[in-house]
Amino acid sequence: MAKSLVAFQGERGSFSEEAAYKLLGRGIRVQPCETFTAIFESVSRGGANYCLVPIENTLAGSVYENFDLLLANNLHIVAEVSLRIVHNLIALPGTTRKDVRQVYSHPVALAQCGRFFAKNPQVERITFYDTAGSVKMLAERRPPGAAAIASRIAAEVYHARILATHLEDHRENYTRFFLLSKTARVSRKANKVSIVFSTRNLPGALYKCLSVFALRDIDLTKLESRPLRGRPWEYFFYIDFVGNVKEDRCKKALAHLSEVANFLRVLGCYESAKR
Amino acid sequence: MAKSLVAFQGERGSFSEEAAYKLLGRGIRVQPCETFTAIFESVSRGGANYCLVPIENTLAGSVYENFDLLLANNLHIVAEVSLRIVHNLIALPGTTRKDVRQVYSHPVALAQCGRFFAKNPQVERITFYDTAGSVKMLAERRPPGAAAIASRIAAEVYHARILATHLEDHRENYTRFFLLSKTARVSRKANKVSIVFSTRNLPGALYKCLSVFALRDIDLTKLESRPLRGRPWEYFFYIDFVGNVKEDRCKKALAHLSEVANFLRVLGCYESAKR
Repeated sequence: MAKSLVAFQGERGSFSEEAAYKLLGRGIRVQPCETFTAIFESVSRGGANYCLVPIENTLAGSVYENFDLLLANNLHIVAEVSLRIVHNLIALPGTTRKDVRQVYSHPVALAQCGRFFAKNPQVERITFYDTAGSVKMLAERRPPGAAAIASRIAAEVYHARILATHLEDHRENYTRFFLLSKTARVSRKANKVSIVFSTRNLPGALYKCLSVFALRDIDLTKLESRPLRGRPWEYFFYIDFVGNVKEDRCKKALAHLSEVANFLRVLGCYESAKR
Repeated sequence: MAKSLVAFQGERGSFSEEAAYKLLGRGIRVQPCETFTAIFESVSRGGANYCLVPIENTLAGSVYENFDLLLANNLHIVAEVSLRIVHNLIALPGTTRKDVRQVYSHPVALAQCGRFFAKNPQVERITFYDTAGSVKMLAERRPPGAAAIASRIAAEVYHARILATHLEDHRENYTRFFLLSKTARVSRKANKVSIVFSTRNLPGALYKCLSVFALRDIDLTKLESRPLRGRPWEYFFYIDFVGNVKEDRCKKALAHLSEVANFLRVLGCYESAKR
Protein backbone atom coordinates (compact mmCIF):
# COMPACT_ATOMS: atom_id res chain seq x y z
CA MET A 1 0.00 0.00 0.00
CA ALA A 2 3.06 2.29 -0.08
CA LYS A 3 2.61 5.33 -2.38
CA SER A 4 -1.17 4.89 -2.03
CA LEU A 5 -3.18 8.09 -1.70
CA VAL A 6 -5.12 8.02 1.58
CA ALA A 7 -7.89 10.56 2.24
CA PHE A 8 -8.85 11.63 5.77
CA GLN A 9 -11.03 14.29 7.37
CA GLY A 10 -9.35 17.34 8.91
CA GLU A 11 -6.21 19.36 8.35
CA ARG A 12 -2.74 17.88 7.80
CA GLY A 13 -1.46 16.56 11.15
CA SER A 14 -4.78 15.17 12.38
CA PHE A 15 -5.12 12.04 14.53
CA SER A 16 -6.46 10.33 11.38
CA GLU A 17 -3.14 11.06 9.65
CA GLU A 18 -1.26 9.66 12.68
CA ALA A 19 -3.44 6.52 12.50
CA ALA A 20 -2.81 6.19 8.73
CA TYR A 21 0.98 6.16 9.34
CA LYS A 22 0.55 3.62 12.15
CA LEU A 23 -1.38 1.30 9.86
CA LEU A 24 0.37 1.85 6.50
CA GLY A 25 3.79 3.34 7.31
CA ARG A 26 5.27 6.70 6.33
CA GLY A 27 5.49 5.90 2.59
CA ILE A 28 1.87 6.82 1.82
CA ARG A 29 0.62 10.09 0.33
CA VAL A 30 -2.17 11.83 2.25
CA GLN A 31 -5.19 13.86 1.11
CA PRO A 32 -6.80 16.02 3.83
CA CYS A 33 -10.52 16.77 3.19
CA GLU A 34 -12.95 19.08 4.92
CA THR A 35 -15.79 16.64 5.58
CA PHE A 36 -16.39 12.90 6.07
CA THR A 37 -18.74 12.98 3.06
CA ALA A 38 -15.86 14.32 0.92
CA ILE A 39 -13.48 11.47 1.82
CA PHE A 40 -16.10 8.80 1.04
CA GLU A 41 -16.69 10.54 -2.30
CA SER A 42 -12.99 10.83 -3.08
CA VAL A 43 -12.56 7.05 -2.82
CA SER A 44 -15.88 6.26 -4.58
CA ARG A 45 -14.85 8.42 -7.58
CA GLY A 46 -11.34 6.98 -7.68
CA GLY A 47 -9.60 10.17 -6.51
CA ALA A 48 -7.94 8.53 -3.49
CA ASN A 49 -7.07 4.82 -3.19
CA TYR A 50 -8.27 4.61 0.41
CA CYS A 51 -9.82 6.67 3.14
CA LEU A 52 -9.26 6.28 6.87
CA VAL A 53 -12.31 7.08 9.00
CA PRO A 54 -12.64 7.21 12.80
CA ILE A 55 -15.47 4.90 13.80
CA GLU A 56 -15.38 4.82 17.59
CA ASN A 57 -13.63 6.44 20.56
CA THR A 58 -13.46 4.72 23.95
CA LEU A 59 -14.59 7.90 25.75
CA ALA A 60 -16.87 9.71 23.28
CA GLY A 61 -18.48 6.64 21.66
CA SER A 62 -19.24 5.89 18.04
CA VAL A 63 -18.75 8.41 15.23
CA TYR A 64 -22.36 7.99 14.12
CA GLU A 65 -22.00 10.02 10.92
CA ASN A 66 -19.51 7.45 9.62
CA PHE A 67 -21.85 4.53 10.35
CA ASP A 68 -24.47 6.30 8.20
CA LEU A 69 -21.89 6.96 5.45
CA LEU A 70 -20.81 3.28 5.44
CA LEU A 71 -24.40 2.39 4.60
CA ALA A 72 -24.94 5.22 2.08
CA ASN A 73 -21.75 4.46 0.12
CA ASN A 74 -20.48 1.24 -1.38
CA LEU A 75 -16.98 1.14 0.11
CA HIS A 76 -15.44 -1.91 1.80
CA ILE A 77 -13.62 -2.09 5.12
CA VAL A 78 -10.20 -3.60 4.32
CA ALA A 79 -8.32 -2.88 7.57
CA GLU A 80 -8.74 -1.58 11.10
CA VAL A 81 -6.36 0.36 13.34
CA SER A 82 -6.62 1.52 16.93
CA LEU A 83 -4.74 4.67 17.99
CA ARG A 84 -4.11 5.84 21.53
CA ILE A 85 -5.15 9.50 21.62
CA VAL A 86 -2.28 11.43 23.22
CA HIS A 87 -2.92 15.16 23.56
CA ASN A 88 0.19 17.34 23.30
CA LEU A 89 0.68 21.00 24.18
CA ILE A 90 2.23 22.45 21.04
CA ALA A 91 3.70 25.92 20.39
CA LEU A 92 5.99 27.59 17.88
CA PRO A 93 9.74 27.68 18.55
CA GLY A 94 10.45 30.59 20.92
CA THR A 95 7.28 30.10 23.00
CA THR A 96 8.05 28.39 26.33
CA ARG A 97 5.57 26.71 28.62
CA LYS A 98 5.63 29.75 30.94
CA ASP A 99 4.67 32.07 28.05
CA VAL A 100 1.44 30.22 27.25
CA ARG A 101 -1.74 32.26 27.98
CA GLN A 102 -4.17 30.88 25.35
CA VAL A 103 -4.65 27.29 24.23
CA TYR A 104 -6.54 26.59 20.99
CA SER A 105 -8.11 23.24 20.10
CA HIS A 106 -11.23 21.36 19.11
CA PRO A 107 -13.82 21.43 21.95
CA VAL A 108 -13.63 17.63 22.46
CA ALA A 109 -9.84 17.79 22.91
CA LEU A 110 -10.16 20.76 25.31
CA ALA A 111 -12.78 18.85 27.32
CA GLN A 112 -10.50 15.79 27.52
CA CYS A 113 -7.73 17.90 29.13
CA GLY A 114 -9.76 19.28 32.06
CA ARG A 115 -7.06 18.56 34.68
CA PHE A 116 -4.42 20.54 32.75
CA PHE A 117 -6.67 23.62 32.69
CA ALA A 118 -7.61 23.19 36.37
CA LYS A 119 -3.88 23.18 37.28
CA ASN A 120 -3.15 26.14 34.98
CA PRO A 121 -5.89 28.69 35.69
CA GLN A 122 -3.86 31.44 33.96
CA VAL A 123 -4.42 29.65 30.65
CA GLU A 124 -7.51 30.48 28.57
CA ARG A 125 -9.21 27.75 26.49
CA ILE A 126 -10.12 28.85 22.97
CA THR A 127 -12.40 26.65 20.86
CA PHE A 128 -11.17 25.95 17.33
CA TYR A 129 -12.69 23.87 14.50
CA ASP A 130 -9.90 21.26 14.42
CA THR A 131 -6.99 20.04 16.61
CA ALA A 132 -4.36 20.06 13.84
CA GLY A 133 -5.98 23.16 12.34
CA SER A 134 -5.20 25.06 15.55
CA VAL A 135 -1.45 24.29 15.12
CA LYS A 136 -1.69 25.37 11.46
CA MET A 137 -3.25 28.65 12.63
CA LEU A 138 -0.35 29.22 15.10
CA ALA A 139 2.12 28.76 12.22
CA GLU A 140 0.20 31.16 9.97
CA ARG A 141 -0.88 33.92 12.35
CA ARG A 142 1.79 33.59 15.09
CA PRO A 143 -0.34 35.00 17.94
CA PRO A 144 1.92 35.72 20.98
CA GLY A 145 1.52 33.48 24.08
CA ALA A 146 -0.55 30.94 22.16
CA ALA A 147 -0.37 27.16 22.08
CA ALA A 148 -2.55 24.35 20.72
CA ILE A 149 -3.57 20.84 21.77
CA ALA A 150 -3.08 18.31 18.97
CA SER A 151 -1.31 15.13 17.82
CA ARG A 152 2.48 14.80 17.69
CA ILE A 153 2.20 14.61 13.90
CA ALA A 154 0.69 18.11 13.89
CA ALA A 155 3.83 19.47 15.63
CA GLU A 156 5.95 17.79 12.96
CA VAL A 157 3.87 18.97 9.97
CA TYR A 158 3.83 22.64 11.06
CA HIS A 159 7.43 22.75 12.43
CA ALA A 160 6.19 23.43 15.95
CA ARG A 161 7.40 22.06 19.31
CA ILE A 162 5.83 19.79 21.88
CA LEU A 163 5.96 21.62 25.25
CA ALA A 164 4.15 18.89 27.23
CA THR A 165 2.62 15.55 26.44
CA HIS A 166 -0.18 13.36 27.88
CA LEU A 167 -2.45 16.30 28.72
CA GLU A 168 -5.49 13.95 28.51
CA ASP A 169 -7.35 13.19 31.76
CA HIS A 170 -8.05 9.56 30.87
CA ARG A 171 -5.23 7.39 29.54
CA GLU A 172 -7.75 4.81 28.27
CA ASN A 173 -8.49 7.04 25.30
CA TYR A 174 -8.36 5.11 22.02
CA THR A 175 -9.90 5.72 18.63
CA ARG A 176 -10.62 2.89 16.23
CA PHE A 177 -10.41 3.68 12.49
CA PHE A 178 -11.50 1.77 9.37
CA LEU A 179 -9.49 1.80 6.14
CA LEU A 180 -12.00 1.83 3.26
CA SER A 181 -11.48 0.86 -0.36
CA LYS A 182 -13.62 0.71 -3.50
CA THR A 183 -12.63 -2.93 -3.93
CA ALA A 184 -13.42 -5.67 -1.41
CA ARG A 185 -10.39 -7.66 -0.27
CA VAL A 186 -10.16 -10.32 2.43
CA SER A 187 -6.67 -11.15 3.67
CA ARG A 188 -5.78 -14.59 4.99
CA LYS A 189 -5.18 -13.02 8.42
CA ALA A 190 -8.69 -11.48 8.50
CA ASN A 191 -10.39 -12.40 11.79
CA LYS A 192 -13.18 -9.86 12.16
CA VAL A 193 -16.33 -9.11 10.17
CA SER A 194 -18.51 -5.95 10.13
CA ILE A 195 -22.10 -6.14 8.93
CA VAL A 196 -25.23 -3.98 8.89
CA PHE A 197 -28.77 -5.35 8.93
CA SER A 198 -32.35 -4.38 9.67
CA THR A 199 -34.86 -6.59 11.44
CA ARG A 200 -38.47 -7.34 10.68
CA ASN A 201 -40.67 -5.28 12.97
CA LEU A 202 -41.72 -8.23 15.18
CA PRO A 203 -41.26 -9.03 18.89
CA GLY A 204 -37.98 -10.86 19.44
CA ALA A 205 -36.65 -9.96 15.97
CA LEU A 206 -33.27 -8.69 17.20
CA TYR A 207 -32.93 -11.66 19.54
CA LYS A 208 -33.46 -14.04 16.61
CA CYS A 209 -30.84 -12.18 14.58
CA LEU A 210 -28.30 -12.42 17.42
CA SER A 211 -29.07 -16.12 17.87
CA VAL A 212 -27.40 -16.91 14.52
CA PHE A 213 -24.11 -15.93 16.18
CA ALA A 214 -24.77 -17.21 19.72
CA LEU A 215 -25.82 -20.68 18.51
CA ARG A 216 -22.47 -20.95 16.67
CA ASP A 217 -20.38 -19.53 19.56
CA ILE A 218 -19.43 -16.54 17.40
CA ASP A 219 -18.33 -13.65 19.61
CA LEU A 220 -19.78 -10.17 18.98
CA THR A 221 -17.41 -7.31 19.75
CA LYS A 222 -19.72 -4.37 18.98
CA LEU A 223 -23.39 -3.60 18.39
CA GLU A 224 -24.61 -0.20 17.27
CA SER A 225 -28.06 0.95 16.22
CA ARG A 226 -28.99 3.83 13.89
CA PRO A 227 -32.41 5.10 12.80
CA LEU A 228 -34.02 3.85 9.61
CA ARG A 229 -35.01 7.06 7.79
CA GLY A 230 -38.66 7.25 6.81
CA ARG A 231 -39.56 4.41 9.19
CA PRO A 232 -39.91 6.07 12.61
CA TRP A 233 -38.62 4.00 15.57
CA GLU A 234 -37.12 1.28 13.33
CA TYR A 235 -33.38 0.73 13.19
CA PHE A 236 -30.34 -0.52 11.32
CA PHE A 237 -28.01 -2.61 13.48
CA TYR A 238 -24.26 -2.63 12.93
CA ILE A 239 -22.42 -5.64 14.33
CA ASP A 240 -18.75 -6.60 14.47
CA PHE A 241 -18.01 -10.26 15.11
CA VAL A 242 -14.94 -12.47 15.38
CA GLY A 243 -14.37 -14.67 12.32
CA ASN A 244 -13.59 -14.77 8.61
CA VAL A 245 -16.29 -14.77 5.90
CA LYS A 246 -14.53 -17.75 4.26
CA GLU A 247 -14.94 -19.89 7.42
CA ASP A 248 -17.78 -22.35 7.25
CA ARG A 249 -19.50 -21.32 10.51
CA CYS A 250 -19.42 -17.63 9.51
CA LYS A 251 -20.84 -18.41 6.08
CA LYS A 252 -23.64 -20.38 7.74
CA ALA A 253 -24.30 -17.64 10.32
CA LEU A 254 -24.62 -15.02 7.55
CA ALA A 255 -26.88 -17.29 5.45
CA HIS A 256 -29.01 -17.88 8.56
CA LEU A 257 -29.09 -14.13 9.30
CA SER A 258 -30.29 -13.35 5.77
CA GLU A 259 -33.25 -15.69 6.46
CA VAL A 260 -34.33 -13.78 9.58
CA ALA A 261 -33.26 -10.19 8.72
CA ASN A 262 -35.02 -7.81 6.36
CA PHE A 263 -31.79 -6.49 4.88
CA LEU A 264 -28.16 -7.55 5.28
CA ARG A 265 -24.85 -6.22 3.94
CA VAL A 266 -21.31 -7.32 4.76
CA LEU A 267 -19.24 -4.14 5.18
CA GLY A 268 -15.89 -5.92 5.31
CA CYS A 269 -13.72 -8.70 6.69
CA TYR A 270 -10.32 -7.61 7.99
CA GLU A 271 -7.59 -8.23 10.51
CA SER A 272 -8.51 -7.05 14.00
CA ALA A 273 -6.47 -4.09 15.30
CA LYS A 274 -3.99 -4.69 18.07
CA ARG A 275 -4.75 -2.47 21.05
CA MET B 1 -48.36 18.98 37.03
CA ALA B 2 -49.79 22.46 36.28
CA LYS B 3 -47.64 25.31 37.70
CA SER B 4 -44.69 22.90 37.76
CA LEU B 5 -41.34 24.41 36.75
CA VAL B 6 -39.98 22.48 33.76
CA ALA B 7 -36.36 22.97 32.66
CA PHE B 8 -35.25 22.43 29.07
CA GLN B 9 -32.16 23.07 26.97
CA GLY B 10 -32.15 25.99 24.55
CA GLU B 11 -33.77 29.38 24.31
CA ARG B 12 -37.46 30.12 24.97
CA GLY B 13 -39.47 28.78 22.01
CA SER B 14 -37.43 25.62 21.44
CA PHE B 15 -38.91 22.34 20.24
CA SER B 16 -38.38 21.09 23.82
CA GLU B 17 -40.73 23.84 25.04
CA GLU B 18 -43.29 22.84 22.36
CA ALA B 19 -43.00 19.22 23.54
CA ALA B 20 -43.42 20.27 27.19
CA TYR B 21 -46.73 22.01 26.35
CA LYS B 22 -47.88 18.97 24.35
CA LEU B 23 -47.22 16.70 27.33
CA LEU B 24 -48.19 18.94 30.26
CA GLY B 25 -50.42 21.69 28.84
CA ARG B 26 -49.89 25.46 28.77
CA GLY B 27 -50.21 25.89 32.57
CA ILE B 28 -46.59 25.01 33.34
CA ARG B 29 -43.75 27.44 33.99
CA VAL B 30 -40.61 26.93 31.90
CA GLN B 31 -36.90 27.34 32.67
CA PRO B 32 -34.63 27.57 29.60
CA CYS B 33 -31.02 26.45 30.28
CA GLU B 34 -27.87 26.65 28.19
CA THR B 35 -26.74 23.01 28.43
CA PHE B 36 -28.17 19.54 29.00
CA THR B 37 -25.88 19.19 32.03
CA ALA B 38 -27.51 22.33 33.51
CA ILE B 39 -31.07 20.97 33.23
CA PHE B 40 -30.14 17.66 34.89
CA GLU B 41 -28.48 19.68 37.68
CA SER B 42 -31.45 22.00 38.05
CA VAL B 43 -33.76 19.05 38.79
CA SER B 44 -31.19 17.18 40.94
CA ARG B 45 -30.73 20.26 43.17
CA GLY B 46 -34.46 20.91 43.39
CA GLY B 47 -34.44 24.11 41.28
CA ALA B 48 -36.91 22.80 38.70
CA ASN B 49 -39.57 20.13 39.34
CA TYR B 50 -38.92 18.39 36.04
CA CYS B 51 -36.75 18.57 32.97
CA LEU B 52 -37.71 17.55 29.46
CA VAL B 53 -34.85 16.08 27.41
CA PRO B 54 -34.80 15.00 23.74
CA ILE B 55 -33.61 11.41 23.61
CA GLU B 56 -34.02 10.37 19.99
CA ASN B 57 -34.91 11.81 16.57
CA THR B 58 -36.19 9.59 13.75
CA LEU B 59 -33.74 11.14 11.25
CA ALA B 60 -30.69 12.13 13.32
CA GLY B 61 -30.75 9.23 15.81
CA SER B 62 -30.19 9.18 19.56
CA VAL B 63 -29.13 12.21 21.56
CA TYR B 64 -26.16 10.34 22.99
CA GLU B 65 -25.21 13.02 25.50
CA ASN B 66 -28.54 12.53 27.26
CA PHE B 67 -28.08 8.76 27.50
CA ASP B 68 -24.78 9.44 29.29
CA LEU B 69 -26.44 12.02 31.56
CA LEU B 70 -29.24 9.58 32.47
CA LEU B 71 -26.56 7.24 33.79
CA ALA B 72 -24.46 9.95 35.50
CA ASN B 73 -27.44 11.46 37.34
CA ASN B 74 -30.06 9.91 39.56
CA LEU B 75 -33.22 11.20 37.89
CA HIS B 76 -36.21 9.05 36.96
CA ILE B 77 -38.12 8.93 33.69
CA VAL B 78 -41.75 9.66 34.59
CA ALA B 79 -43.24 10.34 31.14
CA GLU B 80 -42.48 10.27 27.43
CA VAL B 81 -43.71 12.47 24.60
CA SER B 82 -43.16 12.33 20.86
CA LEU B 83 -43.25 15.58 18.86
CA ARG B 84 -43.46 15.91 15.10
CA ILE B 85 -40.72 18.35 14.11
CA VAL B 86 -42.32 20.96 11.86
CA HIS B 87 -39.89 23.59 10.59
CA ASN B 88 -41.43 27.03 10.03
CA LEU B 89 -40.05 30.04 8.16
CA ILE B 90 -40.41 32.87 10.67
CA ALA B 91 -39.86 36.62 10.26
CA LEU B 92 -40.78 39.82 12.07
CA PRO B 93 -43.99 41.63 11.11
CA GLY B 94 -43.31 43.75 8.00
CA THR B 95 -41.01 41.17 6.38
CA THR B 96 -42.78 39.28 3.58
CA ARG B 97 -41.69 36.01 2.00
CA LYS B 98 -40.37 37.91 -1.04
CA ASP B 99 -38.14 40.11 1.18
CA VAL B 100 -36.26 37.16 2.69
CA ARG B 101 -32.57 37.02 1.68
CA GLN B 102 -30.98 35.35 4.74
CA VAL B 103 -32.29 32.45 6.83
CA TYR B 104 -30.79 31.78 10.25
CA SER B 105 -31.08 28.49 12.11
CA HIS B 106 -29.28 25.61 13.81
CA PRO B 107 -27.24 23.60 11.24
CA VAL B 108 -29.37 20.45 11.76
CA ALA B 109 -32.57 22.39 11.00
CA LEU B 110 -30.98 24.02 7.91
CA ALA B 111 -29.87 20.59 6.68
CA GLN B 112 -33.39 19.21 7.16
CA CYS B 113 -34.83 21.92 4.84
CA GLY B 114 -32.61 21.23 1.79
CA ARG B 115 -35.49 21.32 -0.72
CA PHE B 116 -36.61 24.79 0.42
CA PHE B 117 -33.10 26.18 -0.19
CA ALA B 118 -32.79 24.38 -3.56
CA LYS B 119 -36.06 26.02 -4.68
CA ASN B 120 -35.02 29.43 -3.32
CA PRO B 121 -31.43 29.94 -4.48
CA GLN B 122 -31.62 33.69 -3.71
CA VAL B 123 -31.80 32.81 0.00
CA GLU B 124 -28.58 32.46 1.99
CA ARG B 125 -28.34 29.91 4.83
CA ILE B 126 -26.72 31.28 7.99
CA THR B 127 -25.72 28.88 10.77
CA PHE B 128 -26.87 29.87 14.25
CA TYR B 129 -26.39 28.17 17.66
CA ASP B 130 -30.11 27.46 18.23
CA THR B 131 -33.38 27.36 16.24
CA ALA B 132 -35.42 29.47 18.70
CA GLY B 133 -32.34 31.58 19.43
CA SER B 134 -32.30 32.66 15.79
CA VAL B 135 -35.87 34.06 16.14
CA LYS B 136 -34.81 35.78 19.38
CA MET B 137 -31.90 37.37 17.48
CA LEU B 138 -34.31 38.65 14.76
CA ALA B 139 -36.43 40.30 17.46
CA GLU B 140 -33.39 41.89 19.13
CA ARG B 141 -31.25 42.97 16.18
CA ARG B 142 -33.91 43.34 13.43
CA PRO B 143 -31.60 42.63 10.45
CA PRO B 144 -33.40 43.57 7.19
CA GLY B 145 -34.44 40.72 4.85
CA ALA B 146 -33.79 38.10 7.54
CA ALA B 147 -35.87 35.10 8.61
CA ALA B 148 -35.32 32.06 10.82
CA ILE B 149 -36.31 28.39 10.84
CA ALA B 150 -37.80 27.31 14.16
CA SER B 151 -40.84 25.92 15.99
CA ARG B 152 -44.25 27.62 15.92
CA ILE B 153 -43.82 28.33 19.65
CA ALA B 154 -40.73 30.43 18.82
CA ALA B 155 -42.87 32.66 16.55
CA GLU B 156 -45.34 33.09 19.42
CA VAL B 157 -42.74 33.81 22.12
CA TYR B 158 -40.91 36.49 20.10
CA HIS B 159 -44.04 38.03 18.49
CA ALA B 160 -42.93 37.04 15.01
CA ARG B 161 -44.92 35.64 12.08
CA ILE B 162 -44.92 32.29 10.32
CA LEU B 163 -44.36 32.97 6.57
CA ALA B 164 -44.35 29.29 5.54
CA THR B 165 -44.67 25.97 7.30
CA HIS B 166 -43.50 22.38 6.72
CA LEU B 167 -40.12 23.38 5.29
CA GLU B 168 -38.69 19.98 6.32
CA ASP B 169 -37.73 17.54 3.53
CA HIS B 170 -38.93 14.46 5.42
CA ARG B 171 -42.33 14.45 7.06
CA GLU B 172 -41.39 11.42 9.16
CA ASN B 173 -39.38 13.66 11.47
CA TYR B 174 -40.23 13.00 15.13
CA THR B 175 -38.34 13.64 18.35
CA ARG B 176 -38.97 11.58 21.47
CA PHE B 177 -38.48 13.33 24.83
CA PHE B 178 -38.27 12.04 28.40
CA LEU B 179 -39.73 13.95 31.35
CA LEU B 180 -37.36 13.46 34.29
CA SER B 181 -38.04 13.90 38.00
CA LYS B 182 -36.03 13.53 41.21
CA THR B 183 -38.70 11.16 42.52
CA ALA B 184 -39.62 7.83 40.92
CA ARG B 185 -43.32 7.45 40.13
CA VAL B 186 -45.08 4.69 38.22
CA SER B 187 -48.58 5.48 36.97
CA ARG B 188 -51.21 2.77 36.56
CA LYS B 189 -51.16 3.42 32.80
CA ALA B 190 -47.38 2.88 32.57
CA ASN B 191 -46.64 0.38 29.78
CA LYS B 192 -42.98 0.95 28.95
CA VAL B 193 -39.74 0.48 30.90
CA SER B 194 -36.28 1.96 30.26
CA ILE B 195 -33.20 0.29 31.73
CA VAL B 196 -29.41 0.46 31.43
CA PHE B 197 -27.09 -2.48 32.02
CA SER B 198 -23.57 -3.70 31.32
CA THR B 199 -22.69 -7.26 30.39
CA ARG B 200 -19.91 -9.52 31.60
CA ASN B 201 -17.13 -9.56 29.00
CA LEU B 202 -17.90 -13.08 27.74
CA PRO B 203 -19.00 -14.48 24.37
CA GLY B 204 -22.78 -14.47 24.06
CA ALA B 205 -23.19 -12.13 27.06
CA LEU B 206 -25.55 -9.69 25.29
CA TYR B 207 -27.52 -12.57 23.80
CA LYS B 208 -28.05 -14.02 27.30
CA CYS B 209 -29.21 -10.62 28.56
CA LEU B 210 -31.73 -10.26 25.71
CA SER B 211 -32.99 -13.81 26.31
CA VAL B 212 -34.58 -12.71 29.62
CA PHE B 213 -37.01 -10.67 27.51
CA ALA B 214 -37.37 -12.99 24.51
CA LEU B 215 -38.14 -16.03 26.67
CA ARG B 216 -41.01 -14.08 28.26
CA ASP B 217 -42.29 -12.60 24.95
CA ILE B 218 -41.43 -9.10 26.15
CA ASP B 219 -41.04 -6.76 23.18
CA LEU B 220 -37.98 -4.48 22.98
CA THR B 221 -38.62 -1.12 21.29
CA LYS B 222 -35.08 0.30 21.42
CA LEU B 223 -31.51 -0.80 22.07
CA GLU B 224 -28.65 1.66 22.32
CA SER B 225 -25.01 1.14 23.30
CA ARG B 226 -22.58 3.62 24.82
CA PRO B 227 -18.92 3.21 25.79
CA LEU B 228 -17.95 2.21 29.31
CA ARG B 229 -15.33 4.82 30.25
CA GLY B 230 -12.02 3.39 31.44
CA ARG B 231 -12.88 -0.04 29.96
CA PRO B 232 -11.98 0.23 26.25
CA TRP B 233 -14.35 -1.59 23.89
CA GLU B 234 -16.86 -2.45 26.64
CA TYR B 235 -20.34 -0.97 26.63
CA PHE B 236 -23.43 0.04 28.55
CA PHE B 237 -26.66 -1.04 26.85
CA TYR B 238 -29.86 0.99 27.12
CA ILE B 239 -33.07 -0.90 26.42
CA ASP B 240 -36.72 0.16 26.28
CA PHE B 241 -39.26 -2.64 26.59
CA VAL B 242 -43.03 -2.95 26.68
CA GLY B 243 -44.40 -3.63 30.16
CA ASN B 244 -44.86 -2.35 33.71
CA VAL B 245 -42.35 -3.00 36.51
CA LYS B 246 -45.24 -4.11 38.74
CA GLU B 247 -46.22 -6.89 36.32
CA ASP B 248 -45.03 -10.34 37.35
CA ARG B 249 -43.28 -11.22 34.08
CA CYS B 250 -41.39 -7.90 34.02
CA LYS B 251 -40.31 -8.37 37.64
CA LYS B 252 -39.04 -11.83 36.77
CA ALA B 253 -37.28 -10.62 33.62
CA LEU B 254 -35.48 -7.89 35.59
CA ALA B 255 -34.53 -10.36 38.38
CA HIS B 256 -33.25 -12.75 35.70
CA LEU B 257 -31.31 -9.92 34.01
CA SER B 258 -29.62 -8.96 37.28
CA GLU B 259 -28.35 -12.57 37.47
CA VAL B 260 -26.67 -12.38 34.04
CA ALA B 261 -25.70 -8.68 33.83
CA ASN B 262 -22.79 -6.99 35.59
CA PHE B 263 -24.78 -3.88 36.43
CA LEU B 264 -28.47 -3.00 36.06
CA ARG B 265 -30.52 0.13 36.74
CA VAL B 266 -34.16 0.82 35.99
CA LEU B 267 -34.35 4.38 34.61
CA GLY B 268 -38.13 4.59 34.70
CA CYS B 269 -41.52 3.06 33.95
CA TYR B 270 -43.95 5.32 32.15
CA GLU B 271 -46.81 5.56 29.68
CA SER B 272 -45.69 5.14 26.08
CA ALA B 273 -46.03 8.25 23.89
CA LYS B 274 -48.66 8.30 21.21
CA ARG B 275 -47.14 8.95 17.80
